Amino acid sequence: MDHAALETFVAQEFAQVADILSVHAVSEAGVTLKLTPTQAHLRPGGTVSGPSMFMLADVALYLAILSRIGPVALAVTTNAHIDFMRKPASDAPLYGEATLLKLGRSLAVGQVAIRNAGSDDVLAQASMTYAIPPKR
Amino acid sequence: MDHAALETFVAQEFAQVADILSVHAVSEAGVTLKLTPTQAHLRPGGTVSGPSMFMLADVALYLAILSRIGPVALAVTTNAHIDFMRKPASDAPLYGEATLLKLGRSLAVGQVAIRNAGSDDVLAQASMTYAIPPKR
Amino acid sequence: MDHAALETFVAQEFAQVADILSVHAVSEAGVTLKLTPTQAHLRPGGTVSGPSMFMLADVALYLAILSRIGPVALAVTTNAHIDFMRKPASDAPLYGEATLLKLGRSLAVGQVAIRNAGSDDVLAQASMTYAIPPKR
Amino acid sequence: MDHAALETFVAQEFAQVADILSVHAVSEAGVTLKLTPTQAHLRPGGTVSGPSMFMLADVALYLAILSRIGPVALAVTTNAHIDFMRKPASDAPLYGEATLLKLGRSLAVGQVAIRNAGSDDVLAQASMTYAIPPKR
Repeated sequence: MDHAALETFVAQEFAQVADILSVHAVSEAGVTLKLTPTQAHLRPGGTVSGPSMFMLADVALYLAILSRIGPVALAVTTNAHIDFMRKPASDAPLYGEATLLKLGRSLAVGQVAIRNAGSDDVLAQASMTYAIPPKR
Repeated sequence: MDHAALETFVAQEFAQVADILSVHAVSEAGVTLKLTPTQAHLRPGGTVSGPSMFMLADVALYLAILSRIGPVALAVTTNAHIDFMRKPASDAPLYGEATLLKLGRSLAVGQVAIRNAGSDDVLAQASMTYAIPPKR
Repeated sequence: MDHAALETFVAQEFAQVADILSVHAVSEAGVTLKLTPTQAHLRPGGTVSGPSMFMLADVALYLAILSRIGPVALAVTTNAHIDFMRKPASDAPLYGEATLLKLGRSLAVGQVAIRNAGSDDVLAQASMTYAIPPKR
Repeated sequence: MDHAALETFVAQEFAQVADILSVHAVSEAGVTLKLTPTQAHLRPGGTVSGPSMFMLADVALYLAILSRIGPVALAVTTNAHIDFMRKPASDAPLYGEATLLKLGRSLAVGQVAIRNAGSDDVLAQASMTYAIPPKR
């Protein structure tokens, strides 16, 4: 799936969050997804909530997998680890850069680094595993 | 903080999700939090999304910590691990049972088991660490 | 596999660590494995090393899976999360209580709580996933 | 601490494993540690055991922290996540490349990618948090 196909997939499969997510970059190595937070994703103090960053990581890695194997809507997250390291800038977009570490027949593993624009500091980093359903 | 104080805290500090969360039980060991999903928390097929379960776990453990040390609004999640094991029942409430494993001066660690009502099957289980700011 | 079969399996498959490991209890819910540390497993100060606790958790959960599905020597750990919460007693045996949370066809998930004898305090707790090879 | 100081530290503080570990590279970004497995670190089939890879990651990140803040022998691992993705080459050295993601006053977070020589494939990747004791 290329950039346009991934955008369409997000609009269809993640309708609830499609308005705040946009595909920023697609490469051989992975996908970078942008989250533009609204009031619903903020916590007191203006920072983006942990579950919103988790969602960004989860969708970014899902798209990185689909960009390689095509639209497998039934791939599911089997586990996730996330380290929250720095407070996001108040009210600024977040970029989740998903990189595939392994794309096996039944399991895919990747990491997602979340940053604000224009900074090398990683705000949060996730490692996630997806189960890929067998082909029929 | 007792049951009523925790309910008030959720309403104030988690205004965005307060309508779908309610404190189900408070004990010495921890807190059980109930999530009643709305359309915004579902994924295609009617199942509750991973990020929504992550949010349930995150808030449940936060409340379990506050129930012991009082309202420390600045405690922050430093890392989280979650295993997604079974598909939640379509459109049914989820219960996140948070148990504290360690309550230190600067770090608190706990686990959260997420289930549907009336079943022993754990749908997802999380381990999370919170940093507790030093007292002034 | 029952208690005796598991002991035999450890002696054969984990020859390098069989002298410090012994099966303490086997039940429907899981397996408790005992580690008696030697000098090689200690760190300065007399405490048991993190990697030794990781090994205890890894083998305990492996045995818990085998106790249910029989000797599948090719099951492999796909990922593990471990929280180290308290310093083990110097030079005392550790007990790793492994509980299965899910035993699927291709993935098994469980948790292991590590304690010293006679204490409820969890020293370390692990969540681990094993991939189970398909039957031929 | 520079390359030589780290080597000396390993010999003193990790006497049990010093013979199989050697500091391969030290840079601003982190430390790469080499593990030369012996029979004690192998599993049936000749592959390096999971706990041995965990140990490699744990020590590599510890050294990466010490290279920046000096010999703080009391820093402790508070939690670790590791994904095992590929089987290591039989009987070949492993390289654990530790990178610091955050070096705060009380917590340090980093990741470690484990590879065989001459391959970009990541065999296992770990994310770990260390607690740094307050200065007196």
